[in-house]
Amino acid sequence: MMQIEAMQAFLDREFPQSTVKVVSLGDKSTTVRQDISDAHLRPGGTVSGPVLMTVADVAMYVAVLNEIGIVPLAVTTNLNINFLRKPSAECAIIGVCHLLKVGKSLAVGEVGLYSEGSEDVVAHVVTTYAIPPKRD
Amino acid sequence: MMQIEAMQAFLDREFPQSTVKVVSLGDKSTTVRQDISDAHLRPGGTVSGPVLMTVADVAMYVAVLNEIGIVPLAVTTNLNINFLRKPSAECAIIGVCHLLKVGKSLAVGEVGLYSEGSEDVVAHVVTTYAIPPKRD
Amino acid sequence: MMQIEAMQAFLDREFPQSTVKVVSLGDKSTTVRQDISDAHLRPGGTVSGPVLMTVADVAMYVAVLNEIGIVPLAVTTNLNINFLRKPSAECAIIGVCHLLKVGKSLAVGEVGLYSEGSEDVVAHVVTTYAIPPKRD
Amino acid sequence: MMQIEAMQAFLDREFPQSTVKVVSLGDKSTTVRQDISDAHLRPGGTVSGPVLMTVADVAMYVAVLNEIGIVPLAVTTNLNINFLRKPSAECAIIGVCHLLKVGKSLAVGEVGLYSEGSEDVVAHVVTTYAIPPKRD
Repeated sequence: MMQIEAMQAFLDREFPQSTVKVVSLGDKSTTVRQDISDAHLRPGGTVSGPVLMTVADVAMYVAVLNEIGIVPLAVTTNLNINFLRKPSAECAIIGVCHLLKVGKSLAVGEVGLYSEGSEDVVAHVVTTYAIPPKRD
Repeated sequence: MMQIEAMQAFLDREFPQSTVKVVSLGDKSTTVRQDISDAHLRPGGTVSGPVLMTVADVAMYVAVLNEIGIVPLAVTTNLNINFLRKPSAECAIIGVCHLLKVGKSLAVGEVGLYSEGSEDVVAHVVTTYAIPPKRD
Repeated sequence: MMQIEAMQAFLDREFPQSTVKVVSLGDKSTTVRQDISDAHLRPGGTVSGPVLMTVADVAMYVAVLNEIGIVPLAVTTNLNINFLRKPSAECAIIGVCHLLKVGKSLAVGEVGLYSEGSEDVVAHVVTTYAIPPKRD
Repeated sequence: MMQIEAMQAFLDREFPQSTVKVVSLGDKSTTVRQDISDAHLRPGGTVSGPVLMTVADVAMYVAVLNEIGIVPLAVTTNLNINFLRKPSAECAIIGVCHLLKVGKSLAVGEVGLYSEGSEDVVAHVVTTYAIPPKRD
């Protein structure tokens, strides 16, 4: 397992446009946080779908890297998202990822997305990452 | 919440071909069990995908009915399954469903499928049910 | 590309419980057919979800094998199915698969499922197969 | 069916942050286009996943509105995306949506995403929209 600071530094370097923050790193699980500003909202005052997808994607990426080490080439192959409730426009989005499997070539995880302070899932994601073959 | 016996009787009447058994009914969650025999296996000695899908579908159906009452017309609209590990040919399949949302017209839940006695998920399902409008 | 007879013989040998028939083999596409009897129906007189899933799974398997040759170890890793219309209880189910990608380690395809004689999709599947690494 | 100009004007008003353009409106199908600039790229010089998701979401939204008329409250309930090939960093993304079903309460469609000028799908989406009940 890695240190939060090292993981955050890697994310900031690899995804300079991202503002997702690593909150915690656990055994096959991670929590991340995205502050919400006007740029993340869509009409009706709700967080846009692509923002939710991004938070889930980063939560999963961090969870996978925390297991297999820093491998910048891991790529998402599948992402299935169910939109369940309208997220608050005034709260950060929290993403909690649990890895279901980390195999040699594929990792599968689920991510619950929440408006900070609430226990109701606003969106639920299941996603698959392809892990590149080890180089010798 | 319903009694296990009443739920099982409903299932047996509605799905006479099914041999899935209700194990427990909780708050927005259920556990079901499918004994495995040769008819459920595919070459290689593993439980077939459609059997796993059936167990997940019944677990979700039972969880939804446990919340909204017996409504025989609820139908699956979407099911997404990830096959993660080879299930044992010698163990029952256990399906554990957690409802993520029960709305007026849609219910969404996730189901973990296990070989009895193991904590490793063999397949993971997220599925949506359409709930028919209430008749007056 | 393979001959229909050779593919059917392989399926019959590998999946002796299956009664799905190969109808045609094309360039990255296949059509299969499942006769429907009472054993395939669920209450309400409609084809059960697991039967539809099985037809889709076989259509995809046949399409993949038609591209990469007979590799009995290819396995489904993900299957996403949307149930769109009630299939007829009196018609065969036709599955039409188009491969979206055949990579080194993953193949992705979509399958439209129809009641024979109708152009309305009864269910739509997108599914991923893991292709085992080549042995030398 | 609507005029392209009227649909574009609606999109521009409802989603002022979006730069997706409506290219064509057909019978249960639409084509949209997203110019790609540096802001849409991720490290490695490829179009980011959330950008692809946004293009698919808009293509579907436009296809649904083209069938049922302007109903600003339609919301995505499920989106399943498979990432198939690396999109070009130098080409626009084209999204082609085909509706699989437009029911009273749900619409389901599939969207192929392409780098302009190529016939290879870079990502494939199946998505569901909830249609609000008609007001009298």
